[in-house]
Amino acid sequence: MRNISSIATMQNLALQWKREGRRIGFVPTMGYLHEGHISLVHRARKLVGKRGRVAVSIYVNPTQFGPKEDLSKYPRDLRRDLQLCRAAGVDTVFAPTDAGMYPHTETAAYSTWVIEEQLSREMEGRSRPTHFRGVTTVVAKLFNIVLPDVAVFGAKDWQQAAIIQRMVHDLNFPLTIDVAPTHRESDGLAMSSRNKNLVGNLRPQAIALWDAIQTAQQRVSTAKQPLSAATLRKQLQRLIEQRPDARVDYIEFFEPSTLRAVTKVSRGAHLALAVFVGTTRLIDNARL
Amino acid sequence: MRNISSIATMQNLALQWKREGRRIGFVPTMGYLHEGHISLVHRARKLVGKRGRVAVSIYVNPTQFGPKEDLSKYPRDLRRDLQLCRAAGVDTVFAPTDAGMYPHTETAAYSTWVIEEQLSREMEGRSRPTHFRGVTTVVAKLFNIVLPDVAVFGAKDWQQAAIIQRMVHDLNFPLTIDVAPTHRESDGLAMSSRNKNLVGNLRPQAIALWDAIQTAQQRVSTAKQPLSAATLRKQLQRLIEQRPDARVDYIEFFEPSTLRAVTKVSRGAHLALAVFVGTTRLIDNARL
Repeated sequence: MRNISSIATMQNLALQWKREGRRIGFVPTMGYLHEGHISLVHRARKLVGKRGRVAVSIYVNPTQFGPKEDLSKYPRDLRRDLQLCRAAGVDTVFAPTDAGMYPHTETAAYSTWVIEEQLSREMEGRSRPTHFRGVTTVVAKLFNIVLPDVAVFGAKDWQQAAIIQRMVHDLNFPLTIDVAPTHRESDGLAMSSRNKNLVGNLRPQAIALWDAIQTAQQRVSTAKQPLSAATLRKQLQRLIEQRPDARVDYIEFFEPSTLRAVTKVSRGAHLALAVFVGTTRLIDNARL
Repeated sequence: MRNISSIATMQNLALQWKREGRRIGFVPTMGYLHEGHISLVHRARKLVGKRGRVAVSIYVNPTQFGPKEDLSKYPRDLRRDLQLCRAAGVDTVFAPTDAGMYPHTETAAYSTWVIEEQLSREMEGRSRPTHFRGVTTVVAKLFNIVLPDVAVFGAKDWQQAAIIQRMVHDLNFPLTIDVAPTHRESDGLAMSSRNKNLVGNLRPQAIALWDAIQTAQQRVSTAKQPLSAATLRKQLQRLIEQRPDARVDYIEFFEPSTLRAVTKVSRGAHLALAVFVGTTRLIDNARL
């Protein structure tokens, strides 16, 4: 397995793969890998086959963090990540530097952004105003460097996956997006690198999100008619905030591909929620 | 020569060229081709060689026109353009439709934009606020569809070429930009599809831009010390507006790669100007 930090080296390798007629599967990550990421790697391998090449990027992208967010405390462990990637059969890890990705010289400061203006407005976009601009920009850059035929994203970041799909479609990137199901701990907590920050009695409280999802699923499956989104939202919020350190950021019900909010919730609608557990912000989502 | 309007067909052809190991040279245009465009085609051919493939796009991109601009009266003549391309040895003309480039269905309206925030602010960006957002977006799309190794732009749109170069650098597009010198009519008027609109006694007045450029070049080459940009600007404005139908939009002096304005003008500085001749807006630029 190669570990590359140079953008030019990675791009040249990708161009060589293209010339060799190899399919490229790509898993962009921010590192601190868990089983969820590894499942994306296995999915990428299946999609490109034995002869194909699987690349994983490990990059904590600063432009998708707000000024008051957790960039500095975002967990990192490149050595462990490399071991996990090697074990998972990754061909190349691409771990660029901030100076490489966002060059800032006197004569040429970084100044180009990719923005998605519709799906980015609500939910994560409302809570984190510059977040998706950072995501779409870094993903566009990574696509141009790694030149994948298929890129695999996790369903845990549902809105992100929808926005990336929209970007790929709108900007005509020559690739397809594969969205893989969320991996969960045994108690239902969605796997996330940020779970590392759930220490002490915060960890058991983090089950609040999965608890809310299951409750909503059960309510919808037993309801004789569509439920009021406003009412269900209030009920789930109360349920979640029974935990002393849990505070709801948002709970939204929407149509899963357009992300359009629904006022009546019935089977097939999608639920997404963001909850602070202590100072750690967790997100999750599911089809109802 | 093939004439393709389908995005998928063009992209699949480009991917096939890639697999065959062919270099792709690309000349993006808005059609109504003139000798300047044809010189870009010849340049593209030289850059990719006989075995390479040269693609020309012909697309009057609506998103780079402001609401009060000349989109509807922008000249078009696809039949003639195709003849000129064939004669110039173009392999493929890509002439997409608005519905293809900017799909607008009920569930998925076009919503992704590429923006450059620094070089786009002055000159054309100040006079035409949404212009460069349209340019960078459509060029990013065309790059993803045609997958060029090299794309050729004309120096006449100097700021545009600088912005595209910045975009390619910032977003890591796997290609190089070649900037070709401006072609001029025998009296010095820079070739432009918009010159078609210079009817009657407007045409001779359009030489005002070249007149100003030559005057500035002479002033700078004979000056013993750097000239005041403000003074030179006033002098050139007076010179231009001696013509009854000529009105200056802007006259700027700047460092040619960063586009940073200079207050003192000396050899190597760049001059760019925009002038309305009647209702037709013309631009030109040159190294002093």
